[in-house]
Amino acid sequence: MGEAIRFRRTSELMEQIERLAAFTDGQADESAGSAKPGGVTRLVYTDAWNDAQAYVAEMMAEAGLTVRWDKVGNLIGRLEGLDPGAPAVMTGSHIDTVKNGGRLDGVYGIVGGIAALRLLKDAFGSPRLPIEVVSFCEEEGSRFPIAYWGSGNVTGLFDWRGGREIIDAGQVTLAAAMEASGFGRPEQPDCLRNDLAAFVELHIEQGVLLERLAKQIGIVEAIVGQRRYAVSLRGSANHAGTTPMPMRADALAGASEMIVRLEELAARRASLVATVGKLAVLPNTPNVIPGTVEFTLDIRHDNEGTLAWFCNYLFQEYEEIANRRGLALSITPWLETKPVPMSRELTEQIENVCALLDLSYRRMPSGAGHDAQLFAPICPTAMIFVPSKGGISHSPEEYTSPEQLSDGVSVLASLLYELAYEGRAL
Amino acid sequence: MGEAIRFRRTSELMEQIERLAAFTDGQADESAGSAKPGGVTRLVYTDAWNDAQAYVAEMMAEAGLTVRWDKVGNLIGRLEGLDPGAPAVMTGSHIDTVKNGGRLDGVYGIVGGIAALRLLKDAFGSPRLPIEVVSFCEEEGSRFPIAYWGSGNVTGLFDWRGGREIIDAGQVTLAAAMEASGFGRPEQPDCLRNDLAAFVELHIEQGVLLERLAKQIGIVEAIVGQRRYAVSLRGSANHAGTTPMPMRADALAGASEMIVRLEELAARRASLVATVGKLAVLPNTPNVIPGTVEFTLDIRHDNEGTLAWFCNYLFQEYEEIANRRGLALSITPWLETKPVPMSRELTEQIENVCALLDLSYRRMPSGAGHDAQLFAPICPTAMIFVPSKGGISHSPEEYTSPEQLSDGVSVLASLLYELAYEGRAL
Repeated sequence: MGEAIRFRRTSELMEQIERLAAFTDGQADESAGSAKPGGVTRLVYTDAWNDAQAYVAEMMAEAGLTVRWDKVGNLIGRLEGLDPGAPAVMTGSHIDTVKNGGRLDGVYGIVGGIAALRLLKDAFGSPRLPIEVVSFCEEEGSRFPIAYWGSGNVTGLFDWRGGREIIDAGQVTLAAAMEASGFGRPEQPDCLRNDLAAFVELHIEQGVLLERLAKQIGIVEAIVGQRRYAVSLRGSANHAGTTPMPMRADALAGASEMIVRLEELAARRASLVATVGKLAVLPNTPNVIPGTVEFTLDIRHDNEGTLAWFCNYLFQEYEEIANRRGLALSITPWLETKPVPMSRELTEQIENVCALLDLSYRRMPSGAGHDAQLFAPICPTAMIFVPSKGGISHSPEEYTSPEQLSDGVSVLASLLYELAYEGRAL
Repeated sequence: MGEAIRFRRTSELMEQIERLAAFTDGQADESAGSAKPGGVTRLVYTDAWNDAQAYVAEMMAEAGLTVRWDKVGNLIGRLEGLDPGAPAVMTGSHIDTVKNGGRLDGVYGIVGGIAALRLLKDAFGSPRLPIEVVSFCEEEGSRFPIAYWGSGNVTGLFDWRGGREIIDAGQVTLAAAMEASGFGRPEQPDCLRNDLAAFVELHIEQGVLLERLAKQIGIVEAIVGQRRYAVSLRGSANHAGTTPMPMRADALAGASEMIVRLEELAARRASLVATVGKLAVLPNTPNVIPGTVEFTLDIRHDNEGTLAWFCNYLFQEYEEIANRRGLALSITPWLETKPVPMSRELTEQIENVCALLDLSYRRMPSGAGHDAQLFAPICPTAMIFVPSKGGISHSPEEYTSPEQLSDGVSVLASLLYELAYEGRAL
């Protein structure tokens, strides 16, 4: 079983990615104030997003797919199967972006998915199982504070009737924005699906691992669990000149010791990542000892037990540091997601596909969240990564070479062939 | 020689301090946004400052001093000597404040000085050498970026005709502000003095040393030299989830190691203080590894050689840290003042005075700058400190007990007696 299906219409793929990048909110790009031009800002239910979705619908129709929108605005292109009652194999991603983001994050999984379906249809006709490619709405949570709104409605985490209390920065409710874009109508199909045989997401890595290891494909074993905390340290804001070193309660010196310790402890646990990304000092004046420091912790690992153990151990160390320095410590959790393992069978299948295609690969965790994590509880789910230059994402500098992008489509097409044409997903 | 002169009119001293605290810019107090009420905001050449100076002039006249203003607005109260041509013994400080500052910083040295002169005049009549108490303008540099404008004009560091380019936050030039307050007139006496026999400044410590050591008086051996630097670290702002720990160039982790190292090195050098008071992170987002960190360094010591050695050694360590972490480091000096030793003879005299008065004392550096440092190059100069509760200064919570304040006035009066009545300053 298995077939090495090679995608070769690279220039068409690149052209579609470029055309999608043109759907951007110019005003928002400017107000993002980035020094780097060429970014894409496409927040869900805005004109830029609506127009981009319409263009994706065109691409789907051109590829011979049957197009429909569900009630929240997920856009679905379906290649009907020989047995239309059979469960569907689904692929897809999102076209909403962060402010001044890149042109590949999300988009690649949709454009690549359509390209894979077109290739399969042209070469092999109708599959046994139907295959769908979906453009989910609001993965990033950039406009509304509700990431995975689209895929969450498909998988039953969210209900499209909700969202009347959720507002964007301009006080517009999610429900109103959805309605203004023409969604939530009675005649539109419901979002919730319970007829899925598998879900596969093709995505750029957004990390440096594949590039550094010179691998062509990343096979995601698990999407990491995340814990985020707000840490606050209070000491005494005394005069920088008149307070001898042993008489200080310097909140920034304490925070610095904690940051160094975090890094040391994280480096000892394979594949654990821990970051202090945001930090504020008070009063933040050159000649005053910092009295208060607040910082965020972002800790991720693909094993829930390790994650819990690490945080407990870390916070014991933090208490010791705070006590020794006479600082008042408070740690507030504000986000906790559990690791999501991908399907072992699909992961092995992707390995085989890479071998057939003679592509180098690496099993790895996904350090970022993806729509795929919503599907893992309801059907076998997998993710295929391609390298990101310099690991850069959420930035206009996001880049993957055309060849690398084509390799990813080849892997997706070959996998979808096995699942839907050979019927392995049944 | 020497006489234990005890100041006992404590309640009058406290009343004058309270009355001076009422001269404050209410609007500025509010806009300072402090959670602590009761602060004093009295920036040079504002109504609050002009009114306060006028009240100080009244106090001086009531104490029997001859009052005059010089061209920049330094206010001088003079107790004439039996030999009016003899060089003068000067004491004094400033009444300008930081925004929302305390009621003692500066004020104490003037109110205490006037009290000491009144006590001496009432008890002993005219001194051999004239004694002056001066209220200098703009010590803090809170309105105009030119600290010591008043004492600098007296000692020749600045010239009152300058200041046309120096502007405040409202674009008013120093010269215009001075003129609007009625200064810079031809008939006003010049600022520059070359007839000084000694300068003594009485001041609150603004540090925790005396309180922690339970000493009543601090005798300043030197005002520390200061070096300030801006440190910039540049790494890579990658995704917090997708960038493995060994592949990071985290500017904040690097800065944290530098801050911890600074603290370790400073703790090994007696009386050296080193502070990172201000720090900014970019992009400062919880899930992005900090790409850039900028922070300030404030390093002080009373020995210039130690200060230079320490900074050199530190920066070698910083380069090692930056190189090891793949960070681009830049260190920009933006302030350098040399340590200013006080007069050895005056320092010993103050020790003797403390012994006569049966007050406990401690020789110490001044970690903060003071008007006194401008006088050290032109005449024997000394400083007398009293304890600050909790080391707090530049804050409405600034506090020294009435007894401690009175002790300081006793020391000043006793010293001035020796210098001007016994003629030791000759």
